[in-house]
Amino acid sequence: MEMIKVFGLPFSACTATVLACLNEKEVAYQVIPVDILAGDHKRPPFLSINPFGQIPAVQDGALTLIESRAIVKYLAKKFQGSTCDLLGKTIAEQAVVEQWCEVESQKFNPPFYAIIEQVFINPMKGLGPTDELLLDRNVEKLGKVLDVYEERLSKSKYLAGDSFTLADLHHLPYLHYLVNAVGKGDLVFSRSNVHAWWEDISSRPAWKKVAHNMKLPSLPCIPSQK
Amino acid sequence: MEMIKVFGLPFSACTATVLACLNEKEVAYQVIPVDILAGDHKRPPFLSINPFGQIPAVQDGALTLIESRAIVKYLAKKFQGSTCDLLGKTIAEQAVVEQWCEVESQKFNPPFYAIIEQVFINPMKGLGPTDELLLDRNVEKLGKVLDVYEERLSKSKYLAGDSFTLADLHHLPYLHYLVNAVGKGDLVFSRSNVHAWWEDISSRPAWKKVAHNMKLPSLPCIPSQK
Repeated sequence: MEMIKVFGLPFSACTATVLACLNEKEVAYQVIPVDILAGDHKRPPFLSINPFGQIPAVQDGALTLIESRAIVKYLAKKFQGSTCDLLGKTIAEQAVVEQWCEVESQKFNPPFYAIIEQVFINPMKGLGPTDELLLDRNVEKLGKVLDVYEERLSKSKYLAGDSFTLADLHHLPYLHYLVNAVGKGDLVFSRSNVHAWWEDISSRPAWKKVAHNMKLPSLPCIPSQK
Repeated sequence: MEMIKVFGLPFSACTATVLACLNEKEVAYQVIPVDILAGDHKRPPFLSINPFGQIPAVQDGALTLIESRAIVKYLAKKFQGSTCDLLGKTIAEQAVVEQWCEVESQKFNPPFYAIIEQVFINPMKGLGPTDELLLDRNVEKLGKVLDVYEERLSKSKYLAGDSFTLADLHHLPYLHYLVNAVGKGDLVFSRSNVHAWWEDISSRPAWKKVAHNMKLPSLPCIPSQK
């Protein structure tokens, strides 16, 4: 059988999510780099894979998929029997996993992305210095979201219950950058349950292999993914 | 069996998504209004249902769920056998539905929400007049997203294939407001495939019952949901 192809780059957070899921499932894959520094994601042939011009995308035989959150759900379902279960067993358990995946997508991610944009992306793209007011506002916003996580994680070891699921996995690349790249680790370390959760999930072998390759490029200009 | 409880309001787009799904599944439910004009969503007892202080939330027996996109997935799965299938049958079909649900969430929704905020929410909340530059930028951004839809809908009747799924359903309340409330229907009508798709999905009886009750409040001030 042909290997699963991942079009992406190791430092892209959304690519890292997909790779972490493939590693958890111990599935062989091939990464096909898309040179976003050269703008290859915004022109053919890549636009025929993803008309929105963003990485990652995945090809599994005849099936092409975009959107990292949809990709990992597909992989977790296709390989549900192997290794750990990332989806939950009953319909109710799966609903709780879905709910916390949506919390990441709708509540955690917007302020997280705004922080990364201010601290890292905008200065690197030459779009001017960090807007400190906007940065502070989003740090505060993300802090309030993590307060809810802190309370939740006082009652269950992982976001969706007693075992590691996609809901936790989705946070790995984002928390990695928050802690290791933009100096906002305090958002994690100042909350004891969030801190313990981060230590736990970031020490998973499947993730450590991905994190090892997440070196941010130190080039003067990165084209926008948004 | 106890009826499913929906905490929400008929004019809330995210509540409308949940109600549309329940109607498609012909499941009996009870709407429990949350008076967001009085700020009830931001204090107990509602905060114990949703610590993020937003509507909608759903209670089905012992299970409480938040996040509309997770709620409709749960409902579509729980009642998969009844009426139309909203999820896809094979794992590959389900992945394509998930992908287009994510496109709504990540690509369609951010510029859509920015438009609604500028045209409707900010002026209503007394946060100043419409920022025309920001409005134009987001209308352009949403237009580019709908260009991808136009191309996609030239090849399949619905976003995820030949039948109506959650991917289409998720767009109903947003397109309803775009067309009927903020005068941006041209984004839909200027694209023939998007227009035909909108006419089709918005004429479903399950949706028409919901749309009928989506009267926007004309009060001077609405507290923010974001």
